[in-house]
Amino acid sequence: MEVIALILAAGQGTRMRSDLPKVLHRIGGLCLLEHVYRLAAALEVGETVIVYGHGGEQAPSTLGHLPATWIEQKERKGTGHAVMQAADRIGDDSKVLILYGDVPLLKRETVETLLHHVGESSLGLLTVELDNPTGYGRIIRDGAGKVLRIVEEKDATPEERAVREVNTGILAVEGAPLKRWLKALRNDNAQGEYYLTDIIGMAVAEGYFVDATHPASPDEVLGVNDRRQLAELERIYQGRQARALMEQGVTLRDPARFDLRGEIVELGRDVEIDVNVILEGRIRLGDKARIGPNVYLKDAVIGPEVEILAHSVIEGAVVGAGSRVGPFARLRPESVLAEEVHIGNFVEVKKSDIAAGSKVNHLSYIGDASIGRGVNVGAGTITCNYDGVNKHRTVIEDGAFIGSDTQLVAPVRVGRNATIGAGSTITRDTPEECLTLSRAKQLTVEGWKRPEKARKEPCAE
Amino acid sequence: MEVIALILAAGQGTRMRSDLPKVLHRIGGLCLLEHVYRLAAALEVGETVIVYGHGGEQAPSTLGHLPATWIEQKERKGTGHAVMQAADRIGDDSKVLILYGDVPLLKRETVETLLHHVGESSLGLLTVELDNPTGYGRIIRDGAGKVLRIVEEKDATPEERAVREVNTGILAVEGAPLKRWLKALRNDNAQGEYYLTDIIGMAVAEGYFVDATHPASPDEVLGVNDRRQLAELERIYQGRQARALMEQGVTLRDPARFDLRGEIVELGRDVEIDVNVILEGRIRLGDKARIGPNVYLKDAVIGPEVEILAHSVIEGAVVGAGSRVGPFARLRPESVLAEEVHIGNFVEVKKSDIAAGSKVNHLSYIGDASIGRGVNVGAGTITCNYDGVNKHRTVIEDGAFIGSDTQLVAPVRVGRNATIGAGSTITRDTPEECLTLSRAKQLTVEGWKRPEKARKEPCAE
Amino acid sequence: MEVIALILAAGQGTRMRSDLPKVLHRIGGLCLLEHVYRLAAALEVGETVIVYGHGGEQAPSTLGHLPATWIEQKERKGTGHAVMQAADRIGDDSKVLILYGDVPLLKRETVETLLHHVGESSLGLLTVELDNPTGYGRIIRDGAGKVLRIVEEKDATPEERAVREVNTGILAVEGAPLKRWLKALRNDNAQGEYYLTDIIGMAVAEGYFVDATHPASPDEVLGVNDRRQLAELERIYQGRQARALMEQGVTLRDPARFDLRGEIVELGRDVEIDVNVILEGRIRLGDKARIGPNVYLKDAVIGPEVEILAHSVIEGAVVGAGSRVGPFARLRPESVLAEEVHIGNFVEVKKSDIAAGSKVNHLSYIGDASIGRGVNVGAGTITCNYDGVNKHRTVIEDGAFIGSDTQLVAPVRVGRNATIGAGSTITRDTPEECLTLSRAKQLTVEGWKRPEKARKEPCAE
Repeated sequence: MEVIALILAAGQGTRMRSDLPKVLHRIGGLCLLEHVYRLAAALEVGETVIVYGHGGEQAPSTLGHLPATWIEQKERKGTGHAVMQAADRIGDDSKVLILYGDVPLLKRETVETLLHHVGESSLGLLTVELDNPTGYGRIIRDGAGKVLRIVEEKDATPEERAVREVNTGILAVEGAPLKRWLKALRNDNAQGEYYLTDIIGMAVAEGYFVDATHPASPDEVLGVNDRRQLAELERIYQGRQARALMEQGVTLRDPARFDLRGEIVELGRDVEIDVNVILEGRIRLGDKARIGPNVYLKDAVIGPEVEILAHSVIEGAVVGAGSRVGPFARLRPESVLAEEVHIGNFVEVKKSDIAAGSKVNHLSYIGDASIGRGVNVGAGTITCNYDGVNKHRTVIEDGAFIGSDTQLVAPVRVGRNATIGAGSTITRDTPEECLTLSRAKQLTVEGWKRPEKARKEPCAE
Repeated sequence: MEVIALILAAGQGTRMRSDLPKVLHRIGGLCLLEHVYRLAAALEVGETVIVYGHGGEQAPSTLGHLPATWIEQKERKGTGHAVMQAADRIGDDSKVLILYGDVPLLKRETVETLLHHVGESSLGLLTVELDNPTGYGRIIRDGAGKVLRIVEEKDATPEERAVREVNTGILAVEGAPLKRWLKALRNDNAQGEYYLTDIIGMAVAEGYFVDATHPASPDEVLGVNDRRQLAELERIYQGRQARALMEQGVTLRDPARFDLRGEIVELGRDVEIDVNVILEGRIRLGDKARIGPNVYLKDAVIGPEVEILAHSVIEGAVVGAGSRVGPFARLRPESVLAEEVHIGNFVEVKKSDIAAGSKVNHLSYIGDASIGRGVNVGAGTITCNYDGVNKHRTVIEDGAFIGSDTQLVAPVRVGRNATIGAGSTITRDTPEECLTLSRAKQLTVEGWKRPEKARKEPCAE
Repeated sequence: MEVIALILAAGQGTRMRSDLPKVLHRIGGLCLLEHVYRLAAALEVGETVIVYGHGGEQAPSTLGHLPATWIEQKERKGTGHAVMQAADRIGDDSKVLILYGDVPLLKRETVETLLHHVGESSLGLLTVELDNPTGYGRIIRDGAGKVLRIVEEKDATPEERAVREVNTGILAVEGAPLKRWLKALRNDNAQGEYYLTDIIGMAVAEGYFVDATHPASPDEVLGVNDRRQLAELERIYQGRQARALMEQGVTLRDPARFDLRGEIVELGRDVEIDVNVILEGRIRLGDKARIGPNVYLKDAVIGPEVEILAHSVIEGAVVGAGSRVGPFARLRPESVLAEEVHIGNFVEVKKSDIAAGSKVNHLSYIGDASIGRGVNVGAGTITCNYDGVNKHRTVIEDGAFIGSDTQLVAPVRVGRNATIGAGSTITRDTPEECLTLSRAKQLTVEGWKRPEKARKEPCAE
């Protein structure tokens, strides 16, 4: 039986105090709605329908790349009304799974259990036990534990209020009865809204069995209504990810100071991650890779036995086996370091290839360059890749030695085993094996006096 | 009725193991005593009297700018004795509010309630319920709940010790009876001290009603006696601030890794603050400003849609709308960036104006400079603003292009749309629209041999 | 009576998912096994015997410098079998202390108590009360509280399972009876292993008194079986260290964001440590030293009144009194700063001495240099210490002023009070008191046109 996932994502989220629809706020780098979408996708549902509303076209225009059916709920008349908008998409013989765009931590196994509970005369309902159930609809069961109905706070008797099992709104049910019950929903209540919850009573009245189950942890059904909850869920989510990594054999020096906003798509053995590291996008970490404190990686490939030292920022780059990067290094997109490359402090590399064993250890900017094997790039070297209009490439061949504070005015090529004298401005290709330099003569001005001031400060700032 | 706030701030704080008087230690960037002072100021009391003692004149000399009356308690003879020092300042028909310089988290609403309890025959006393009341004075009430007296630990019967409601010492009372009771205090106890607490018994004996109320949270009355408590209160304080910001619509990626040591005096909508950010002094954050991880801001104005990337340090600077700063950028005081300015990695800006759309993307020092619109400052550019004695200004006019590794020896002016060749030392003003450079000829030395060593290391560090 | 410490360190640690033996994983920068070794060493035991196994020779080859006796347990046949391997080392009249290489947080006082319980007819056993004792051997006592035996989970009656006091395996006993009982151990159980625990029953049967005591906190006996536990113990360990420092009078802005992986061997008064600081190796911190956020120190000596600003990395360096370093500074090994030295942003110092009052404030690389007093090193200065083969030294004498973007090609000496013009490449020694420079003439190219492009971008990146 085909499953259709219906994600209710039209809520306004006033308490977020945001111009963004609530479901577009992010945890772990992904929109809340995308988390829920991915859950549905992981279940391999036949179709995902997203009912959106508040914030106009922002949600579909931000997440329009997701293969989902977007339906606008033009008026906000309650959860039942939201589901009605999607009624056309619901086949009679499908299973309908109702999810919420602002409840992002639900786990696949929980939803699978819920779907297993859907039958010809049964539906699956997700409920949780809360220490403080105030405000939630209570699950009323008979003596044998069978669910009879859901009672809203305001309609509950004192005994009913004492019930700690509450409705999460997440449910799974066959298409035909759902559509029948939707038609029967009424909005003769204080808010004038159609409540999806009311179908539970209808189901019981028709003799359906309401199979109410709990998620493994109540965290799974937490929703986001304000920024405090957003932060709370962020930390729960990050805690889950940290634990999963540790179970896979990663050493995390402090799981509470770790953020993964994306995915580790490849994970080596004996990886170590120091405190306050952030990983974004798609990350590969080779065997024995060591990531230092306060390092930020995005879409990075970190080879085996690589060491990334403190305070480095690496984005869209590849770091080859055994390389050492940082501290204070910045690798920008399309930088590819081969094996045993050293990139030191205050060095920026952009759109450049650096071959095995080469070193750029200090205070340099390497942009749009190809650097061969065994090259030593001195401190303060700058590839002048930009003439104000176009970018040009610098090529440094194997074994070259670039003296400190050299400017390589691209396009330019430094030949194999060439040496460039310190402080040179290299505007033309330099021959192999030779020393090339541009240097003015060192002169001493005799009798020169330092500038003076009434109150002399020999060495201020 | 005028309120006089009396802040007892003479405590020695031996367990702080510090040369600084305890009340000068800081949480949230402010001295403990200043937190208490600000509470009094927020209540718009008529006068604030600070009784200081330990540490000599350090407290008044550090915080002497506060409009308070400073009275030294020359001998430390207990809280009653401390209050006696201020007796001259207390008008008979004033309300006296007793606060403590080492209890910094008390909230305004709590104290306002306390003050409301002061009447002709009533006083307000702040008490809390503790899970473990050991060591504190217990609040003894009669069957009707009326406070009878405070019993110190050592004098308490087993039943009295079981009482969990304890005295905080914070109280509010009319001036006349307070002064009367102060005179009646005796120091015939083990420590030979005058205990302020004893006035409660006197008040009850005179038929006064002791109106004992709790703060919203027991955190409010926590005191600082050692560095562990200092750290504990720091985190409670920061947690409060983080929650307040989230309620105002700020996204905090991790409220437990956020420090505000000052004030956000202007806060836009949809501001995002990543992990481990520190804000000091007076901070303005425009709409959609995004503050990256590990960023430190002090007295900064961050415009709308600005992005501050990881590991940046900004102090006393203004960042215009839509600008992008960092990673690894440092803006020092009196730096003003207009709109859409880009400051990149390993760039320091000091006392400089940079007009709209200009870029300083890599490894530069811009000090005492005025940079026009649409200027591109190449990597490794340095304004030589200091001649060893005086600072001079560099002016770069609109549309100029500064080649990499240029030194601009101030005072110097680069003309409109001028281009400076890479590696130049510019000592004189450069004309508009032209290329200016200083460059030695590139030479190749044929037959030159690299230095050699027995055991050759072609490209060591 | 001589004490012999027996550390069982042969466990496989499969759940670590590591190529490293479990006991070589680290907390606080030290191998688990080394923590246990140090505990034994602190007790001044006569001999420490480490029984290793899993991971081949990795443990003894990594920690072979420890003065211990290493014995391989070739087959893993249980804890009893492990102890049997060391039987030859156990004197009849010695006290034997059994410790575990993966239980690193045990405190000295706890073990001392345990050793005091060893007598002619008594042994000391460490037990703890757990809220959830599932899986552990229960301590069964008689009505008078005397330990009768240890019952394993699977053999326990329901009443026995309800017992919350469990065996930790840590014990102390005389050598003669231990060896007698070891010989009597049998492995006729499901696993075919010899359990050390079985000696408790033998001891009781012989009329020994089993003196079971608890550690001050159950944390002390936590073991490491997976990376989650490794992280958990890391944080417990760091929490302990943070508290100890605060008790000594250090201000920690956030004890939960502090890592000490080594030792503070000297600690001044009123030291302040901001958030997210990491200290490694042997650290000295002088009076009123202030360590900024995200600073990493390793084997560093930080003098009194020194301020280390945000994001600095200091390793193997000495920072003299009143100096200011950072933000974004890197001091590498063998750097020695005298008093009142300023090292600013994006500056790297390596193997250099810098005398009192000198300043290197911006974007410089100082390697293999000796800098005198009162020297001002301009922005972008680079010591060219490496010719591709050898390192050479740069000497800058007192009072020199190095203009910005200067390269000092070592070996080279800048004379006393010399001035170097900006942008110079200095290859020969420069005389005292004079201005020396190498500079090409500034030229303007009239009629020069900037490169153009169809779609002009006047100032892209």
